[in-house]
Amino acid sequence: MAETAPASPTTHRARLYGTERLTAFSDGVFAIAITLLVLELRLPELATDAPLAVFAGALQGVLPRLISFLISFFVIGLFWQGHHRMFHVIVRTDSALAFINLVLMLFVALIPFPTAVLGRYAPSQPLAVMVYAGMMVLAGLVSTSLWLYAMRHRELLASGTTSRQLTHFILRALAMPAIFLVSIFIACVNAGLAMWSWWLILAVRVAIERLWRD
Amino acid sequence: MAETAPASPTTHRARLYGTERLTAFSDGVFAIAITLLVLELRLPELATDAPLAVFAGALQGVLPRLISFLISFFVIGLFWQGHHRMFHVIVRTDSALAFINLVLMLFVALIPFPTAVLGRYAPSQPLAVMVYAGMMVLAGLVSTSLWLYAMRHRELLASGTTSRQLTHFILRALAMPAIFLVSIFIACVNAGLAMWSWWLILAVRVAIERLWRD
Amino acid sequence: MAETAPASPTTHRARLYGTERLTAFSDGVFAIAITLLVLELRLPELATDAPLAVFAGALQGVLPRLISFLISFFVIGLFWQGHHRMFHVIVRTDSALAFINLVLMLFVALIPFPTAVLGRYAPSQPLAVMVYAGMMVLAGLVSTSLWLYAMRHRELLASGTTSRQLTHFILRALAMPAIFLVSIFIACVNAGLAMWSWWLILAVRVAIERLWRD
Amino acid sequence: MAETAPASPTTHRARLYGTERLTAFSDGVFAIAITLLVLELRLPELATDAPLAVFAGALQGVLPRLISFLISFFVIGLFWQGHHRMFHVIVRTDSALAFINLVLMLFVALIPFPTAVLGRYAPSQPLAVMVYAGMMVLAGLVSTSLWLYAMRHRELLASGTTSRQLTHFILRALAMPAIFLVSIFIACVNAGLAMWSWWLILAVRVAIERLWRD
Repeated sequence: MAETAPASPTTHRARLYGTERLTAFSDGVFAIAITLLVLELRLPELATDAPLAVFAGALQGVLPRLISFLISFFVIGLFWQGHHRMFHVIVRTDSALAFINLVLMLFVALIPFPTAVLGRYAPSQPLAVMVYAGMMVLAGLVSTSLWLYAMRHRELLASGTTSRQLTHFILRALAMPAIFLVSIFIACVNAGLAMWSWWLILAVRVAIERLWRD
Repeated sequence: MAETAPASPTTHRARLYGTERLTAFSDGVFAIAITLLVLELRLPELATDAPLAVFAGALQGVLPRLISFLISFFVIGLFWQGHHRMFHVIVRTDSALAFINLVLMLFVALIPFPTAVLGRYAPSQPLAVMVYAGMMVLAGLVSTSLWLYAMRHRELLASGTTSRQLTHFILRALAMPAIFLVSIFIACVNAGLAMWSWWLILAVRVAIERLWRD
Repeated sequence: MAETAPASPTTHRARLYGTERLTAFSDGVFAIAITLLVLELRLPELATDAPLAVFAGALQGVLPRLISFLISFFVIGLFWQGHHRMFHVIVRTDSALAFINLVLMLFVALIPFPTAVLGRYAPSQPLAVMVYAGMMVLAGLVSTSLWLYAMRHRELLASGTTSRQLTHFILRALAMPAIFLVSIFIACVNAGLAMWSWWLILAVRVAIERLWRD
Repeated sequence: MAETAPASPTTHRARLYGTERLTAFSDGVFAIAITLLVLELRLPELATDAPLAVFAGALQGVLPRLISFLISFFVIGLFWQGHHRMFHVIVRTDSALAFINLVLMLFVALIPFPTAVLGRYAPSQPLAVMVYAGMMVLAGLVSTSLWLYAMRHRELLASGTTSRQLTHFILRALAMPAIFLVSIFIACVNAGLAMWSWWLILAVRVAIERLWRD
């Protein structure tokens, strides 16, 4: 996938490393965080022979948590997709980039917590929506700063990476935190609307994708 | 395993990527979902010195959950096997394929939830059986649509892939959702029988395997 | 690590595959099962300002669960090590081998359950010790049957694999289930002694290792 | 990333293996342990329409657990980074190195337990701080012993590895357990201060990084 680092660590000066284990570790965190989300989905304890209406009602009661599951699933999925593309262009890593990536993984690993809060208390508690959105703004900015760092350290990039490409990637990376930031203000007025606004992220992504293709 | 994407992202037009990280991420989700199933297996709290009969009874009480564990283990295992073979033939990916794969991962990551419901409430609650089967129908259709998408985008496929092979793969992918779909109707009459019918999936798989060999 | 399967699926007759994804999936299951064990370790709910003696007592109360954590950690570790070596020699896989491997993963993924039972009820309940040991006997036999299958399908093995090597591997694979089997009978008399006997597995492994070296 | 082991197991005498699966398994354990930490973050059960002050208070009550989450996240992150670099220099493995690595993974997998104790009972219970620090001292020593073992088995190292490099790596590996050891004594006097002292680890790491660069 990327140029591998030389076998002997003495041959490079700036202590650059290949990105294999960094992406393997990151893939692990993405995959685990996205799969742990399911642990929040549980039925209340019912009698095994509860009437159908009661059982169906319990299933329906899981719906808000299922919605927050879906939201976080796609958010983590988009972060993963962005990460995937990023490390298609970033083919070497140094300590600082590895550290910024670790901070990004911190936010990814945290996502199940605000997701659980969201599924349990939104939209009744606007603060739950704000905390969720605020966290995603921070995560999005960390993701963007990975790009900014790599932009200033061209030795980390695949040869042939153009400035136009980098601008495109940074714009796309900023779309998510921008929409989440706006939604914090919307949540002051209407928490439910704020949550609906998040689906714009998918739309904007598709739009950027289309535009870039031409 | 597959042809790797070129090192420089500027050399390909259609923004195709290698499948390494997509399969690594997917393997992670499969492995985590399949291993999280065990968290549903737990004994009720007993006294440490409870009589043998009580302790043995508690162990026996885990049996329905163990059965649903087994069912979901093999279902996820079959999805994984199908995915494995799929990405032996699909050797490049684009955004759309990655998105369909993400939706498939969504269903795989969800499986522990209907499994827990099944283990706790089936076969007393036919609805639990129907929800489980319904979810698998959807998952199976998403898996099939990955094939259909790849079929119409031959540039994603390994050179030398024949239409006969693709037809075989799609047929096999459809076997699971078809049986789960039928079982929803069976569950209206007899939920326990519906659950037994699922084991047909293994039989059909083996049969298709044998037929194709000749 | 191993010879990769050809890029085009049409060039091989017997539908052999490389082992990369099988081992990646298996490594995932091993790593997750071994890490989920920690979820059983928890303190009872105490007041934040509980007296030191109470707090220290609670920590001490975790000890039996810590011991069962350690036992299962090393058991899974040994299974992983055996799997690692196995797929150093088995360099190609077919459907049947993948299925036997899936059954092995089933037992590996199950291990946190008997571990929890063991940590909570052993050695007071000999049945807990027997269930644990019985599970490991089954897991060990499945692991051995992977070897037996590969032995009869030489096309799956690395070229140059000798019968003497295979015999060695099978003997080593049998050491674990043999000791666990004996411990079931010991547990009828003394459950604590049966648990201690499990540490023999490490000793036998080191002994076989030494013997083979000469 | 490293020289791969030969395909045929008969060609090497000392039974050396490549490090691919060892690092893949370890990356899995690192990624899972770091992501499981989030399961400790949960709100107490509140009414959905609880007053804002109550809800905000509950969020604030998560803060001590969030701090222990952050501490363990960076500790595991540093262990991972050290492991990453270690296996950039160690390119082959034997049974003993694999065993020491398994013991390191044992401590990594355990970390969520002392983290939970810390988040729940620190700094009120100095013993919680001491147990956490004591565990990290042990983990750090195991990590260091990996280096010491590799130093005495040069055939495991990449060609061109210098003694100066090894000394640097060992010094860096020792920084973490040294600071945790001192913090145990600080905790006898002031548990809160002991926890703050842990952030020195990051500072020392950066300092060693800078010094080595020159």
